[in-house]
Amino acid sequence: MARIETALTRALGITHPILLAPMGSAAGGKLAAAVTNAGGLGLIGSGYADAATVSRELVAAGNARVGVGFITWALDAKPEALRATLEAKPMAVMLSFGDPAPYVAQIRDAGAKTICQVQTLAEAEQAVRLGVDVIIAQGRDAGGHSGTTRGTMGFVPAVVDIAGSIPVVAAGGIADGRGLAAVLNLGGSGVSMGTRFTATKESLWDEAMKSRVTASGGDQTAQTRVFDIVRGAPWPAQYPGRALKNDFYLRWHGNEELLQAERTDAEKAYLATKPDDFSARVIWAGEGVDLVKDVPSAVELIERIVDEAASVLARGARMVRPA
Amino acid sequence: MARIETALTRALGITHPILLAPMGSAAGGKLAAAVTNAGGLGLIGSGYADAATVSRELVAAGNARVGVGFITWALDAKPEALRATLEAKPMAVMLSFGDPAPYVAQIRDAGAKTICQVQTLAEAEQAVRLGVDVIIAQGRDAGGHSGTTRGTMGFVPAVVDIAGSIPVVAAGGIADGRGLAAVLNLGGSGVSMGTRFTATKESLWDEAMKSRVTASGGDQTAQTRVFDIVRGAPWPAQYPGRALKNDFYLRWHGNEELLQAERTDAEKAYLATKPDDFSARVIWAGEGVDLVKDVPSAVELIERIVDEAASVLARGARMVRPA
Ligand SMILES: Cc1cc2nc3c(=O)[nH]c(=O)nc-3n(C[C@H](O)[C@H](O)[C@H](O)COP(=O)(O)O)c2cc1C
Ligand SMILES: Cc1cc2nc3c(=O)[nH]c(=O)nc-3n(C[C@H](O)[C@H](O)[C@H](O)COP(=O)(O)O)c2cc1C
Repeated sequence: MARIETALTRALGITHPILLAPMGSAAGGKLAAAVTNAGGLGLIGSGYADAATVSRELVAAGNARVGVGFITWALDAKPEALRATLEAKPMAVMLSFGDPAPYVAQIRDAGAKTICQVQTLAEAEQAVRLGVDVIIAQGRDAGGHSGTTRGTMGFVPAVVDIAGSIPVVAAGGIADGRGLAAVLNLGGSGVSMGTRFTATKESLWDEAMKSRVTASGGDQTAQTRVFDIVRGAPWPAQYPGRALKNDFYLRWHGNEELLQAERTDAEKAYLATKPDDFSARVIWAGEGVDLVKDVPSAVELIERIVDEAASVLARGARMVRPA
Repeated sequence: MARIETALTRALGITHPILLAPMGSAAGGKLAAAVTNAGGLGLIGSGYADAATVSRELVAAGNARVGVGFITWALDAKPEALRATLEAKPMAVMLSFGDPAPYVAQIRDAGAKTICQVQTLAEAEQAVRLGVDVIIAQGRDAGGHSGTTRGTMGFVPAVVDIAGSIPVVAAGGIADGRGLAAVLNLGGSGVSMGTRFTATKESLWDEAMKSRVTASGGDQTAQTRVFDIVRGAPWPAQYPGRALKNDFYLRWHGNEELLQAERTDAEKAYLATKPDDFSARVIWAGEGVDLVKDVPSAVELIERIVDEAASVLARGARMVRPA
């Protein structure tokens, strides 16, 4: 198979410029290890800075060189989760959704690579000042939580223009080799994919959730706070989550204050629904979901994406005619 | 200079795969002609289906082969504007923001190319059924009005997958050669740019507005309805407009019902502000505005973008290593 070498593969010492996004509920040690073993970098989702989750999933990852991702505002409440994680010597630690300044030096001093996922240009400027190893520019096209200000297409080149020699990775709406090739042309050095990896053999999601993903289209996703409100997850308002629209969404989106007021009852009702009742239960998914039509293994997926990107890049060069 | 040949350049008989988006207030006949003469396709903005604007700007375009864009819901109220336009034999007619079905055959029968700008995959499917010549996939990253459902990055490949042999053009967040190259790798055949062209020598905008664009960044834009509400422009709620955030936006965004109730007074106050008082007056701009830093002529801009895209495409191919 082909190989694509970028500033990201060199900075992290990996074979392919593909990161597994650290997804709470989906990206456990098994999937992270599979992505790393396939030549990318697997990042374990730590949930809300849950040290028990991290140590369990690091065990599941075995000897594979994986990293761990933290939701920064959750880490602020449980900073000891980072200390415990660093003792296990992860290859990298990713921070997103909050102020990374208190943690970057600690991660670097422990010998792990520092990765910051940013949602605005102002945050990208901060990451440059902090001297992180990798910046992930996340657009609101992404599955799960993201900002509302920036879309992937315009955001990536703007971050590249201020990042200097720091490799920029794109996240949000990328699910195949065309997306990887496009990001490289925008000046990015790789991609971080979430939605695409939820539907892989090694994902922690069950078959019913994976089938829902492969059957859904991007017109059906929306950013919303209703699933966080009902579950009592204290996400700051500037980070809604992108999910498949369902009956629960249609009932409550736009009525967030009422939902908040009725939260105790609403949460009971939500939790009383069957886990596979997707008219109520959330399925986080990004706009790349149109492109997700099967459930391959991580290694099959990565080889497919790299091969497709390589042929797309070659075809792109052939479109150019001499004057 | 380089040339990039795609299904779009072949379908429209143009040299470069770049369209000038039909922007009310900015894309007059002078700019449209300059884009066409530089090898792209210039589309004149018709405002709210204003036949007088179209005929004036077609005169300004002289002999250049230009097209005209209509806001479909506005055309529904004034269908005679299309008839008058077609008598002038435009090269193409673009429709956006409404149901194109009543107009496509009329445009085709008059010998003009049919271009539909779509905001959802469902609308793209309709455009395929109607057999239009070109589909523009517009993400909410765009300046001016757009949908809210789709971002450019994930939308373009999804539209390409259903478009068959119809060329797909991307709109929203694209302002340089990296963006053009990225779109080609996503499977698109060209780009339609608005924001980038507002800051060109031939744009109808005045120097104060152009300076505002070149000085602004993408973190500062937002989709909103407040500028439409205050000006009494009856845009359907699913099409907000992306503009630079200013004091007026900060005052009213989120308070749309109150603004609607106080509309008569608010409109008077808005119109009483000086045209260059950008704390009140709207400047439509998309997220590509980070990349807009100068005011070149249209021909300089197009040559720069094509040359940059050509070198980006060549560099992309060099990133691939044999196994
Ligand atoms: C199911 C799911 C869970 C996610 N959980 C997290 C998380 O816990 N921490 C985090 O930083 N990002 C999380 N994300 C966002 C990812 O980091 C990433 O930005 C996103 O998945 C990229 O967009 P894509 O889904 O279009 O590939 C999650 C995404 C999904 C789809
Ligand atoms: C100032 C301005 C005015 C616009 N007016 C129109 C219009 O009248 N009709 C239309 O179809 N699109 C209009 N658009 C949207 C464009 O068709 C196009 O989709 C958009 O500019 C592409 O995104 P970009 O601004 O990031 O290049 C306008 C955009 C701008 C920036």
